[in-house]
Amino acid sequence: METVAVLINGRREQRIEVFDRGFQYGDGLFETLLIDDRQILFWNEHIERLEAGCRRLGIPAPDGSLLYREALELCFGADESVLKIILTRGPGGRGYLSPAPVHPTRVLSLHPLPAQIEKRRQEGVRVCLCRTPLGINPCLAGVKHCNRLEQILARSEWSDPEIYEGLMCDSEGWLVEGTMTNLFWVKEGHLLTPRVDRCGVAGIVRAWVLRTMHAWRIATSEVRMRPSELREAGEVFLTNSVIGIVPVIGCPSLDCTWPVGDLTRRLQG
Amino acid sequence: METVAVLINGRREQRIEVFDRGFQYGDGLFETLLIDDRQILFWNEHIERLEAGCRRLGIPAPDGSLLYREALELCFGADESVLKIILTRGPGGRGYLSPAPVHPTRVLSLHPLPAQIEKRRQEGVRVCLCRTPLGINPCLAGVKHCNRLEQILARSEWSDPEIYEGLMCDSEGWLVEGTMTNLFWVKEGHLLTPRVDRCGVAGIVRAWVLRTMHAWRIATSEVRMRPSELREAGEVFLTNSVIGIVPVIGCPSLDCTWPVGDLTRRLQG
Repeated sequence: METVAVLINGRREQRIEVFDRGFQYGDGLFETLLIDDRQILFWNEHIERLEAGCRRLGIPAPDGSLLYREALELCFGADESVLKIILTRGPGGRGYLSPAPVHPTRVLSLHPLPAQIEKRRQEGVRVCLCRTPLGINPCLAGVKHCNRLEQILARSEWSDPEIYEGLMCDSEGWLVEGTMTNLFWVKEGHLLTPRVDRCGVAGIVRAWVLRTMHAWRIATSEVRMRPSELREAGEVFLTNSVIGIVPVIGCPSLDCTWPVGDLTRRLQG
Repeated sequence: METVAVLINGRREQRIEVFDRGFQYGDGLFETLLIDDRQILFWNEHIERLEAGCRRLGIPAPDGSLLYREALELCFGADESVLKIILTRGPGGRGYLSPAPVHPTRVLSLHPLPAQIEKRRQEGVRVCLCRTPLGINPCLAGVKHCNRLEQILARSEWSDPEIYEGLMCDSEGWLVEGTMTNLFWVKEGHLLTPRVDRCGVAGIVRAWVLRTMHAWRIATSEVRMRPSELREAGEVFLTNSVIGIVPVIGCPSLDCTWPVGDLTRRLQG
């Protein structure tokens, strides 16, 4: 494991208490932010989502200015990196019952960019369809929480390095997202993306794309659709906070290829 | 937080690496075992379930004799305690992708018994119905894994100390289990319990009850039923590895009461 810079509750440490509920139960939230050109991209949006997640899970939200100070301290002098923020309910409680008061644990860590990010943005990527479903639970839907076994099982389904991402459906077979990305496709001039009201993550770049489409007066719909409907798409792309917008050029499991589309390129700016 | 004895990978420690996947993603399994009369109850059954969970999640199973030695070391001289074993996929990996090779983390910790355990076994407990659903996912169903946000949200729904447990349904409204227990009820001479093939935990005491019923030639069924069907039950009880068998005497949300039944008492032995 490479050594990376970490701040745990403001201190340079690498270890957390074993009774932290993040470790015991996955009882927490996280954000993954891109540092580019000495800027933290979408800081406000990430902190707003973290705060919204805190409200959903009943975890006291951290002081935004404290978090920003810690982020700046950790990222000082860094360029082209990934900042991960984890916030857990902290230690304690009796079993699943939350402790009172809650003393959340916040962990900031700084990581190198994933490999081949620019190549993927330019040339596009291939995806597969995963068999592991996403359980439907409106209480957790949209939240970027630390219960990620579904994504881990889905990610274990392929080892082909030519496949960048796996698409997941909910337990009723509706397309939702990739294991680490949101999904968009264009059909008859409309930009479509799955709803994330019953499962899935409400991505920061996903929201930015929807806002941008509104500004550009391009029609969008959040839909429930089967994976097979991707066959009728004119262009397909994935989003997340680190890679931004990445074109999808093929899905061998659907026997499909797509061109890198105009809207994808326009969104990539 | 009270200080409790902990062994992490065989060493007396209280802290784990922050990049352990247990902390990052809830990527692990756990077992909760009762120590009573200087014996670890159902040791073999717990280790078999842990191994089965490892196969499901693709985590290398720990050496059973090593785990037993560590358990004996930790529990030496202890009486009436709870032993918790956590096994995670350890540190590393790129995002959700598992590291290769995997170096699992095993954590054994020893805790005091919960309060009022004997009183609850004798007098019975009250339950409520939780609104938080369990997501349906056959890939994770039955497994005692460390993704427990659903149970945490459900447990946050009540604060009345007279309510011991909350019953949870899956996202389609079928009764599954309590937040920390399995559920049984008797109807017309049959012992019924919800199926755990789509969500829920396949409890050790649950399996023992089903085996015992078989030996006693009492009919059992694993069913999908609505919570309202509990109104027709003659007796109701909960099981888990710490409390064993505990009678349910009422559910205010269903406006129901039940007597402590003969079968419940017979199973309590």
